[in-house]
Amino acid sequence: MSETTKFLLAEREIPESWYNLAADLPSPPPPPLDPATGRPLDPATLAPLFPHALIAQEMASERWIPIPEEVRSVYRLWRPTPLLRARNLEQRLGTPAHIYYKYEGVSPTGSHKPNTAVAQAFYNRAEGVRRLVTETGAGQWGSSLAFAGAMFGLEVQVFMVRVSYQQKPYRKALMETYGARCLPSPSPETAAGRRFLAEDPDHPGSLGIAISEAVEVAAQNPDAKYALGSVLNHVLLHQTVIGLEAMRQMEMAGEWPDVLVGCTGGGSNFAGLVFPFLGRSLREGRRLRVVAAEPAACPSLTRGVYAWDFGDSAGTTPLMKMHTLGSGFVPPGFHAGGLRYHGMAPMVSHLRELGLIEAVALGQRECFEAGVLFARSEGIVPAPEATHAVRAAIREAEAAREAREPRVILFNLCGHGHFDMQAYADFFAGRLEDRELTAEELARSLASLPRLR
Amino acid sequence: MSETTKFLLAEREIPESWYNLAADLPSPPPPPLDPATGRPLDPATLAPLFPHALIAQEMASERWIPIPEEVRSVYRLWRPTPLLRARNLEQRLGTPAHIYYKYEGVSPTGSHKPNTAVAQAFYNRAEGVRRLVTETGAGQWGSSLAFAGAMFGLEVQVFMVRVSYQQKPYRKALMETYGARCLPSPSPETAAGRRFLAEDPDHPGSLGIAISEAVEVAAQNPDAKYALGSVLNHVLLHQTVIGLEAMRQMEMAGEWPDVLVGCTGGGSNFAGLVFPFLGRSLREGRRLRVVAAEPAACPSLTRGVYAWDFGDSAGTTPLMKMHTLGSGFVPPGFHAGGLRYHGMAPMVSHLRELGLIEAVALGQRECFEAGVLFARSEGIVPAPEATHAVRAAIREAEAAREAREPRVILFNLCGHGHFDMQAYADFFAGRLEDRELTAEELARSLASLPRLR
Repeated sequence: MSETTKFLLAEREIPESWYNLAADLPSPPPPPLDPATGRPLDPATLAPLFPHALIAQEMASERWIPIPEEVRSVYRLWRPTPLLRARNLEQRLGTPAHIYYKYEGVSPTGSHKPNTAVAQAFYNRAEGVRRLVTETGAGQWGSSLAFAGAMFGLEVQVFMVRVSYQQKPYRKALMETYGARCLPSPSPETAAGRRFLAEDPDHPGSLGIAISEAVEVAAQNPDAKYALGSVLNHVLLHQTVIGLEAMRQMEMAGEWPDVLVGCTGGGSNFAGLVFPFLGRSLREGRRLRVVAAEPAACPSLTRGVYAWDFGDSAGTTPLMKMHTLGSGFVPPGFHAGGLRYHGMAPMVSHLRELGLIEAVALGQRECFEAGVLFARSEGIVPAPEATHAVRAAIREAEAAREAREPRVILFNLCGHGHFDMQAYADFFAGRLEDRELTAEELARSLASLPRLR
Repeated sequence: MSETTKFLLAEREIPESWYNLAADLPSPPPPPLDPATGRPLDPATLAPLFPHALIAQEMASERWIPIPEEVRSVYRLWRPTPLLRARNLEQRLGTPAHIYYKYEGVSPTGSHKPNTAVAQAFYNRAEGVRRLVTETGAGQWGSSLAFAGAMFGLEVQVFMVRVSYQQKPYRKALMETYGARCLPSPSPETAAGRRFLAEDPDHPGSLGIAISEAVEVAAQNPDAKYALGSVLNHVLLHQTVIGLEAMRQMEMAGEWPDVLVGCTGGGSNFAGLVFPFLGRSLREGRRLRVVAAEPAACPSLTRGVYAWDFGDSAGTTPLMKMHTLGSGFVPPGFHAGGLRYHGMAPMVSHLRELGLIEAVALGQRECFEAGVLFARSEGIVPAPEATHAVRAAIREAEAAREAREPRVILFNLCGHGHFDMQAYADFFAGRLEDRELTAEELARSLASLPRLR
């Protein structure tokens, strides 16, 4: 029989500040470089793209950054989110481990993305911006920014990776319901888009290309700014509400995690859960294992190189030191659309270099198997991205069973799968393939890495 | 700028009993009749279809019926659900009314349906049943029973109205993810299905037909029982957790509703919100307006007759006194799949006859307009069914504006629209038609009403 153990916070316990991990690291991550000079970027050069408040957060070193009351007010629509113990899953696995998960799928768009979308919309609106331009892969980020734009009266324009635009008309409909404009990328509306369309009129698009287009539009329109859904420090910062709430909830449960697990595409939901726990472990000298679960088809942390690279495919962003597959990388088709980025957040990459986190690459079939097992055990259907965290958490629970140790595992269930049932249908129909990157493909893609002067 | 006012209950405030409106009515609703004799049904004849506990609840007259701890445990996965005040919508409408809504879309399947699915699965499991058979229209009920079956280790078989089965492959995938078997109705697996297929091999199906098939399978298999997602007293009873929570939350808000609004298909989400408030109003002699919002394309309360009718199309169920369009009614195509039933719950019909509730029929375009306005104001995209409640609540708020009265309106937002974005896409593309039933169609359909001996 089913049993639910849930830990709920009161509304007043929505965090009042975001947590900045930079304050607690033994060494700072390398700053972004200006590709023209090869020297650390002057923050002022970011002003055409981002409001001043977000640029300041990007560079911030203080540990706590207050969350504006207007942002907390919108957070209240769905936060605090629940933390649950997966007792049925534990029983099915026959593990002595305790498996907890933080559930971000209760947000209006079904994922963790609104945590930063709301903050970004607020700061832009506060500085007089009228239009936000962004890119989206699977559509979770685009629809979340569309939601946030509606909440603060901002126009939102979304460049959606063409192959997703065609496969996921419902995500486009969701963005339009919130009043946003969504168009396929590469598009004829930008110089970058026209360049890629000239190479291939049926170009399937990539996140890197869509970023190039969005950045171009924002840079050329004084009333518009750019918004990014992952990778950057301020985005990861906003996501720390996840981990801050989860720390209190683990205290309610009377336990503390031995292992943290999150899936990684650009790194934002992973960072959101992990950073507050990791910072506290560093401050208190406690041991904490952290596992990043990434798709074998887009394995930046496990097979990429740690190098300076562009955030986009056209080479218009600053250079960031990160684990990357090369900014020209176009991943093979697989279903976790939110995990298809060529690089990893510089802050997450830095943690990997410091030896503070582990990484594992997973095939999509084993992930969907885990997703189905989770749905049948716990009642919630995970988003394809989140199935990677589920699978990695199950591996940890199985290892605890082998070791006969009652380890405490906490993972981030960053979204529900209600928009992604085609992926589950494909899984049941045996239509999913596990496609690993070949060494040749990787070498070809890495050849696109910029050479620093 | 956006502002969120939410009223949250603690987990221990999940109701401990369901509320039975029958205890507070001035007269009881007419009991179901045995079609063979025309006399009140012997409850024992329902035993092949339902477990004893649910038959007892169907006939119960006591005011409070305890919720088993096993059911409350599964409720805890998503309950208590939030109640929110739609302040942004109020501002956009320029109304002095206060608009509150109870939000049931946070459940694992995105609607209120699990409230009864979980209870039904529990009682069946407790009496040794191994398999539940049911029907579903749009898929909300089928996926909710599939979820509940997974929680209690029951097999679930779902007959899905064929036109929905073809249009909504994602709902089928959701049921399969939970381990259920979903097949299109009419199907060749039952005598009833074969009969309708013989008439028309491409029969689009109807809820009435799918019920006939599910009832037939359950009646013929000793280890299987039937489960219904609306209409019956015990189903409405289980939904009263919605209104019981909402009463406490309105007390937290320091207000009491002047008007309650819910959408009606079979009546379950409407009853769930309304019955506890209505019972208290009756006991305390307070005035309370209640508005049922139904689709103009399937207008059982506003244009149906109050008569004895079958619950299914093959005429295999007991006869129920209800507002009905005739059990042979096949509604024209429209998007609120959960509101396509030919009849109305006998208890809700009885309230209409007693003059305790009002009803209004709405076109689907004005409902989707209201849904989009709500999404852009409040951040949540309503299910097509729920847009009817939104539109009716907006009408009430506009009436309050005309009257310059600060009325308090509470409506049930019974589900999110994440599975129904095709409907919104059709709305934006101008592909939605408003199709009212003609007088001839109604007369033809009513000719199927049974004649009592």
